[in-house]
Formats: sequence, C-alpha cells, structure tokens
Amino acid sequence: MTSNMDKLRDYLAEQQLDGFVIPRTDEYQSEYLAPYAERLAWLSGFTGSAGLAIVTLQHAVIFVDGRYTIQVKQQTDNSIFEYASLTDDAVKDWLHKHLKESDRLGYDPRLHTDSKLQIMVDACQRNGASLIAVTSNPVDQCWSEQPEPPCSNASAHPLQFSGESSISKRQRIGKQLKEQSAHALIVTLPECIAWVLNVRGEDTPCVPVVLSRAIVYADNRVDWCFAADRVAFDLTEHCGDTVKLINEAEFEFRLTSIAGNGHKVMVDRNTLPKKYFDLLTDHGAIVIYGNPIMEQKACKNSVELDNAHSVHIRDAVAVVNFLVWLGQAVDSEQVTELSAVDKLLAFRQQQPSFRDNSFDTISGFADNGAITHYKVTPESDKALEKNHLYLLDSGAQYPEGTTDVTRTLVLGEPTQEQKDNFTRVLQGHISLATCRFPEGTSGHQLDAFARRALWDVGLDYAHGTGHGVGSYLGVHEGPQSIATRPNSVALKPGMILSNEPGYYKEGEYGIRIENLVAVKKSEQLPGFLEFENLTMVPIDRNLIEVDLLSDKELDWVNHYHQQVYEKVSPHLSDVGVKQWLREATARIDADNDNH
Amino acid sequence: MTSNMDKLRDYLAEQQLDGFVIPRTDEYQSEYLAPYAERLAWLSGFTGSAGLAIVTLQHAVIFVDGRYTIQVKQQTDNSIFEYASLTDDAVKDWLHKHLKESDRLGYDPRLHTDSKLQIMVDACQRNGASLIAVTSNPVDQCWSEQPEPPCSNASAHPLQFSGESSISKRQRIGKQLKEQSAHALIVTLPECIAWVLNVRGEDTPCVPVVLSRAIVYADNRVDWCFAADRVAFDLTEHCGDTVKLINEAEFEFRLTSIAGNGHKVMVDRNTLPKKYFDLLTDHGAIVIYGNPIMEQKACKNSVELDNAHSVHIRDAVAVVNFLVWLGQAVDSEQVTELSAVDKLLAFRQQQPSFRDNSFDTISGFADNGAITHYKVTPESDKALEKNHLYLLDSGAQYPEGTTDVTRTLVLGEPTQEQKDNFTRVLQGHISLATCRFPEGTSGHQLDAFARRALWDVGLDYAHGTGHGVGSYLGVHEGPQSIATRPNSVALKPGMILSNEPGYYKEGEYGIRIENLVAVKKSEQLPGFLEFENLTMVPIDRNLIEVDLLSDKELDWVNHYHQQVYEKVSPHLSDVGVKQWLREATARIDADNDNH
Repeated sequence: MTSNMDKLRDYLAEQQLDGFVIPRTDEYQSEYLAPYAERLAWLSGFTGSAGLAIVTLQHAVIFVDGRYTIQVKQQTDNSIFEYASLTDDAVKDWLHKHLKESDRLGYDPRLHTDSKLQIMVDACQRNGASLIAVTSNPVDQCWSEQPEPPCSNASAHPLQFSGESSISKRQRIGKQLKEQSAHALIVTLPECIAWVLNVRGEDTPCVPVVLSRAIVYADNRVDWCFAADRVAFDLTEHCGDTVKLINEAEFEFRLTSIAGNGHKVMVDRNTLPKKYFDLLTDHGAIVIYGNPIMEQKACKNSVELDNAHSVHIRDAVAVVNFLVWLGQAVDSEQVTELSAVDKLLAFRQQQPSFRDNSFDTISGFADNGAITHYKVTPESDKALEKNHLYLLDSGAQYPEGTTDVTRTLVLGEPTQEQKDNFTRVLQGHISLATCRFPEGTSGHQLDAFARRALWDVGLDYAHGTGHGVGSYLGVHEGPQSIATRPNSVALKPGMILSNEPGYYKEGEYGIRIENLVAVKKSEQLPGFLEFENLTMVPIDRNLIEVDLLSDKELDWVNHYHQQVYEKVSPHLSDVGVKQWLREATARIDADNDNH
Repeated sequence: MTSNMDKLRDYLAEQQLDGFVIPRTDEYQSEYLAPYAERLAWLSGFTGSAGLAIVTLQHAVIFVDGRYTIQVKQQTDNSIFEYASLTDDAVKDWLHKHLKESDRLGYDPRLHTDSKLQIMVDACQRNGASLIAVTSNPVDQCWSEQPEPPCSNASAHPLQFSGESSISKRQRIGKQLKEQSAHALIVTLPECIAWVLNVRGEDTPCVPVVLSRAIVYADNRVDWCFAADRVAFDLTEHCGDTVKLINEAEFEFRLTSIAGNGHKVMVDRNTLPKKYFDLLTDHGAIVIYGNPIMEQKACKNSVELDNAHSVHIRDAVAVVNFLVWLGQAVDSEQVTELSAVDKLLAFRQQQPSFRDNSFDTISGFADNGAITHYKVTPESDKALEKNHLYLLDSGAQYPEGTTDVTRTLVLGEPTQEQKDNFTRVLQGHISLATCRFPEGTSGHQLDAFARRALWDVGLDYAHGTGHGVGSYLGVHEGPQSIATRPNSVALKPGMILSNEPGYYKEGEYGIRIENLVAVKKSEQLPGFLEFENLTMVPIDRNLIEVDLLSDKELDWVNHYHQQVYEKVSPHLSDVGVKQWLREATARIDADNDNH
C-alpha cells in the first residue's frame, strides 16, 4: 500500500501538483467497475462501491458513507489515511483545513461531473488554491500493473428482447430533442447507448454493456465512439445506415464543432464528464439539461414486460432449487455464506439464457444480515446454523430481463420477535404492492406505505424502498425511485422497480423482503396506476405471525403463493422440489376468528 | 373598469413605460390584503386571492390558477383582458408574444421578490426589452380614492400567550445567525416580526399583525421600522432596551451601511422585496438565504400549546351552538350560505376573547361545496335545503391561538355514494391522525396516508392535506406542510398543522374533514413523533358508513367523540345543546360481525 501512495506523491510533486482527487468511479460514472478503473482500490486497498479519496503531499483522506465506515478502516492503512463521511460538507471542511494558498489540486476531468466537482471548485476558491484538470491520470501513470481497459465485443440485442428497433427509439428521442430545439444529445452512460442502439456487451461485471460514448442527433443520426472491430454484428442491418462509428479524437472534434456552430446541446448533468462539459461550453454551445433516453428506457415495452414475466419464473426455478438444497444441506453438510453464494450461482447457471449475476450476492447469516450492503469475503464468511435468520439478496442477467430478489429465511425455529418484525416488513411490502395511485404520482409519495407497520412499533430501515431496474441492463437505474428522499419523476406504466422494505437489528439479524414489480394502468380505475408482481419466489411461511395480518393481508399472501405455485411448478422436473414448493406455498389459514 | 385601465395606460405612456406588472400582493407578500393594496381589484375587478396582471399599452392579461378561472371571467371585462394560467411558462409565453424590442416594462420593486421576478427578467432579456423598477406605483398614482394604508396600534402579546419573552427568542435567533456568521436577518414578513417582538395588531383582515419591517441583529438588537406613536405599550418593558424604532429612510440607510461594511446578511428569498434585495447586493452585502424565525415560530412552546388546547374547546362551543341552531333553523326559517356565515360569526363573537375570523369562511351548499376555495357572495348565495351536503370551513383568531375547522354535514338523508365517499375521506383523516413517524420525517412522506382510502376506489383531491397554522397569527404558515409536493422541512414537536383530506364531485357536492393537530413526541416510542388532536367538533355520524370502517377506525371515531363530549360539554350552558352533543358524539357500534 505504502509504496503505491509514495509513487503517487512522487509523481504529483514532479507534476507540480500539491494534491489529487480520486473518486471511486470510471469515465462512465459506472457503479460496477472494470478492473482497470479500480484506482481507489489500487491506491488504498478500499474496495467498497462508493468513496472518494483526496491525497495531498502530506495528508490523505477517504470519504465513505455509513455502509463502509468499518470496512474502510479494515482495508486501508490507518497510519496513512484519515476517514470522513462522504458528504459535501465533510469534503469542503477537509479541503478548507488542508488546502494552502496557491496550492494546485489536480483532478481527472473524465472522472467527475460538472455538478459533483462544484464542491472542489468552491473549496479551492475559498482557500485561494487552483483546481487543475490533468490530461493523464497520475494513478494510471504510477500503476505499473494496471489492467487494460475491457474490450468485449458489442453484440446485437435482438428485437425479440428489445421490442423496438433502434431507429424507432431514435425517432422518439429525436422528436423530444426537436421539441426543445436541441441539435443533439451527448450520451456517456453505457446503459443509455445499449438501449438506444439495442446492443449489449461484457465490459463490466453485472451490467451487460460495452463502455462507449455517443452523440445522438435530433435527426436520428448517431455518432458512436466505439472501435469498429469490436462490433460483432451487422451494424447497418441492425441499426440502419445512420449510425457512424468514430474514435475518441473524432468524438471530441464533433463536440467542438457542434459547440462552435452555436447549437443547443442536451447533456445529462448527472453523468456527463467535466471534460466534455468544458469542451462544449468553452466552444460556445448552449447547454441544456436532460436525458430523454433515461426516461424512455425506464418504461419497458410490452415485449420487455412479457419477457420479464417469463424470465422471473425461470429465475424463481433456480432460487427454489437452491432453497430446497439449502434446507437439506444445513442438516447434512457444512454450508457457509460463501458456499451458498456459489451454489445459488450454479443453480442459476443451469437456466438456459443465464448470463451473469446482476450484482454481488448479499448472503448474510445472523448478525451479518444486519449489515445492509454486506459482501461476504473469506474472512467474514460464516457457517449457516439452525435457529437463525439468513438474508439472501441476489439477481441475474438474462437477455429477457434483469432479476433482483431478496428472501429472509429461518433455518429451524425463529424467535417471536423475529416473527413479529418479519411480519411487519411483510405488511409494508404488501401495503406498497397493493396500492393504487393516480397518474403523476412520484415514488416519494408511496414510500411510507412500506414503512408504516414498522413505524407503528417504533422501527424503521435506513435505505430506500425501491430502485428502478433495467431490462437486461443495470439492476439500479433511474430516474424513478421509491424513497424518503423527494424524486419528482412520476411513476409511469412499464417502469420496473424493487419493493424491498427491511428491518435490521445490529449484531443480531437482518430482514428484507424484495420483489420486483412493474407499474401498469389500473384496469378498473381510469387515470390510476398499480403494481404487478414479477418475482415468483415463496416467502418463508415459518416467519409469518398470522395474528398480525389483516384478512386482506393474509389473502394477499395466499394469492401470491398460489400464483408462485401455478407459475413455477410446471418448470420443476424434480418431484421432491415440486412437493417442497407445494408445501412452501400452501394456504395459510387465520388461526383465530379475529380475521 | 374601463376608465381605470385608461387612466393607467395614459399614466404609463406619460412615464414612457410600455407596460406594467400588477401582482396580487402587497409590500409584505401578504395573503390577506388591506384595502389600499387591492391594486389588482381596482384595475380589473378581480378579487381572488392569487393572480397577476400585465398591462401593456395595447394588451392586458390576468393570470390566475385553477380556482379562479371562472370567477376571473365573471368579474372582469372580457373585452379588455385576456386570461391565462398562473404558471411561469404561461407568463413567459405571454411576455415573449407581446414585448417588443426596446420596450420598457415597469414593475414595483416593493411588490416582487427577487426569485419571482426572475421570469420577467428572462423574458425581457429574450425579447430585448428592459425591466424598469418604478419608484412610485402607477396604480397608486391613478387611484384617486385609494384608501390609506392601515395604521392600527401595535399591542403587546403578553407572556401568558407567547410563552417566551422577546429577548429570549432573539437570543435563540442571534445564536443561529452567529453560527452562519451572519451579521443580521432582514425581516419583511409581518408575522415574523409579530413573533419575535411578541406584538400583534389589526392592519390586515384575518391576520393579527401590524405591517412593518425589521432588522434583527446577531447581537439580539432589533431595528424596527414602525411609527413610535402606534406602539400602544411600553416597548422597553416588553422587549428590553435593544429594540429601536426607525423610519423607512433609516431602514434603507441601515441596509445600505450593513451592506457597505461587507457584512454577511441573511434574507428570506421567498419574501424579501426586490427593492431591499437590490439595495443589499448593490452595496456589497454577502447575502445568504434563510429564515430562522420562520422555523422557530412554527414550533409552538408549551404555553402556546396549552392555550391552543383550551381555545379549541371554546371555539368548538361556538361551532356546536351553530350546528344545533342550523339543525333547527333549516326546518323553521330560510337559512342561506351567507346567513349561516353570519350566524357562525355571531356564535364565535360570544366567546370572550374572540378577535376575528382567521380566514373568509367557506360556506358551500351542495354543488358550491365542490368549489374548493368557494367564497360565498350575495350573487352565489344558496338556500340550504334538506338532503344535500353542506361544507363549512371556518376558523377564528383568539390571543390563545388560531383555529381552523371543516365539517361536512347532511341536512336530512345522504345518498349511499355520499356516505361511502365521506367515509373514505374520514378513513384518510384517521390514517394521518394516527400515524407515528420517526424524527426527520417530512410532510410529503405522510401525505398519501390521507389519500389511500380514496385512491383505492379511483378518487383523489386536488389540494394539499395539511398547512402550518400560527399561534394567534396566520392560519397559513410555513415552513412545514403535508402535501404531494416535496417539502424537505422535517415535522418537529410543537408544529401545528391541518389534517384536511376531501373529495369534490363537480356540480354535486364537496366533502372535507379538517382538524388541527399538533406534532408531539411519542411517549411509547423513542425517536418517534405523532399527532395530537386540537379540534373538538363532532363529525357527522349520519355520513359514516360503518361497514367500511375497520375496528381500529371505528375505535378512533368513538374515542374522538368521547373526548369531544368530555371536553366541550362542561362549557355548554344550554341543556338542549348539551343533549344534542351527547347524541352527536354517541358511540357507534359495528352493525355486523365483520369487525
């Protein structure tokens, strides 16, 4: 570790830089990084999914959020790094304390957006320091064994899965650009390019995309900044003759000339790298903010939704097989959090079109289940034992769609408290799943439905209730969400979201129940929307305290389980597994007359 | 009408102005205007509570929101005015269409905030026109019979009602200013001055304030821009010797010199008139945004809350007396919407410390009840008849507190649909009233609790669910609210809000059930908050469809009615009225065993 830091500081001094900023992302603002982009991990050892380091010649700090406060200290050298909370204020304060007048603080303009960089700009201004955009990243210069950037082939995502041709999508996007008098939209988010061109790839773990950029014009043309030899399909046949392959130099030249012509250009302020933002504004472009691709991509068409329904059943087959295996294995062999992850993957790999996990499986036994974003490692790995809760959050990528499901199980007997709290989480899940709401409603209006049963007894959970989910794309996608934090994006038919309330008792156990749901128009109520369940995996009956459920809630559970059995059982070849599913989804009766 | 418009246009031409903007507010951004400030009504005849006119030498437009689209056409000359929706886009579009290059559009900088004026700035810039701040308002110049601005005396709001001395309040505010290195806070909202100095007045209808401005310094001093001869109490005794009376010229001089010294000044961007904003920034002040008075004022202290509880009981006595009278009068005499308003006021006036209505009573019979902000006039006045719904939304000002209550009644028999919909509104009311929520929760998170029972059958209402309420101050106060629209202000103990879901069937009837509630800490659940009911008026039992209510909901109704009877009946002298209340609050039993 130390030597990497020393190398970096020597290099910075050589370059007359007094410091450098290392965010945990890549040139595409990705959440899942290819190995070459793990610059923060190279420097510090920290492998969390979010973080920011600032290194000066004398000091170094890593900012992480609540999920990683323990992990960052375990993974990094405490004699080198300070630690702080990943908030604007903490970053500002640290810079204010450590930046001296006329200091030169470097940053890589490919790795920051204009809006995220604003804190640094303000801090430098306040202390009389300069913020210097480097042309090559000092970490890359010092990292002798840095892996090559990925270069998987781009493959066609055919109409049977995409449900709409690229040219049709671009006509819709072009129309929206024209309405705002925008000449072009600059796209630097790989998922957006994957959607608009109907292509997929394998450049990053968990998200089936190729890393590339594009300019989408109002007249439906696309300049796609991507290597021709990596296109493993007939581009003209697939996309029409209006998609042109260009290289990085041409991409930058196009931005410059679009700007030079005084065109109005639309950019996504949350994802456009500062480098391109400056290129546009320095050359006179009128920049407007927006990303119609993001909005359109969020609303799945009927082909995507039909495929989602069927692929969720196949994914459920894998999960059900795993659950049956787990129930038997804990009695007969040593099962650990890690071996369970491997076994689940093996069952998913048996599904014909399985491609990848959609994120790192969270396999949390007992107290590990209470760590919200727990990622099991050989060091943290625990053996699964009876009479504890086990939280399993996993998902997969198939060309037909992306899955994400969390189930909490008890191996053996739960405590009454565990049953009560599980049931309250379930009540929240049901409350959100069954709500109907008028068109125009945003996720923040619905979030508390999922919390109320917990709130009633003074409990809560410190994460959002639902994130958007792509179709054979990112398992986390915007712009919609269901969370405490305001999000003015209205929920629209075709949007897929997770419904995942939870409860976490530190040091003891974690509970989460997650299904994916699709927004659809209400058949009975004009102008109203509702959710349709996609996930088809049984909910552990042993954890349900029937007395807490209302008649309607119990009906929901029974109806859900009936659906699970009807849809999943025909795909189960093993008689024992089928029998297990029959029992796992058997009708629950109210055991007293309160109901 | 025409002659006022002609006068104004002649004057504008004389002043070499091509147009003028007339907002419906005063120099204090008041909602309730003193007669002198009814400039929009003088010009156009329009008397709605929100609107904006723009007059050029050839054209004139009035922008109003959905509440007033019909009224504005009835009240104003359609041959003179165009009408448009009161939105930023509509204002921009109209200006873009009608402003010519080098046109001079005038505005009164005392009547606009910097943020609200931004639309005009943008529009003028786009068309190459100039926006001209006038030094005297052209309407005032043309309005020969313009009333004098009000000049009621300021009276002390004593400790027995305020619960905290002015100096103590200023110490708290000063501390907050110092924390942000602000030298002073500029206060132009009369309610904020009333709170910080513990004074009240009678300058405006419904809101017991004097119109004035002040500078509150971080060292607890106050420069109060107010006439010494209107102070009807011993200022030094009441506020200490650090409150200095100044006149308008001095006020402006102080702003200039604070700014000239390069001080940091806090202003409320939503209410500070552009005139003072420019004065500060033109003279070099560092302006920061905030209004700690607004936040502190929202959280009532224990004296204010205790008084609120008792004054709501007294207000209930007036309302109950009215309801008894109404039930008898509809059988024996002609009762109209207007005569009911008068009668209700008469009953309130019998309460010892009654001062004023807290807003114009909404008295809507049958289809008039469906007009959300209906204000009865002699022209619209309807006779109350049997077998229809009647919506009555009213409130009062007492030194002990401000009330606001809506009840929907049926005179005779309701239809099944009316009962069902009333009961769903009641279920929403109960759901919000009974929720418990963690500290840090904002109103937008709770809003949907009040809507869900309606959403379940495809119904909704097009207004917020709850507004903040002052303590012998404005019946509408910020910063908190419970609404669909995001509001990041957390609900805090002591805040008073309305809980007022409704349902409106156009052309037929309106339903609304409104109580005021106070936020308080949950006794059972640490870290959690809940609501406490203040309003003590029976809910019409004839409109409740018991079959729709759950056991818990029915318990809530019965418990609420029991409380109403216990608290209100001891204050009823008339045996008949007492008997009426006993029946109106009698226990409702579930009439089948579904419960």
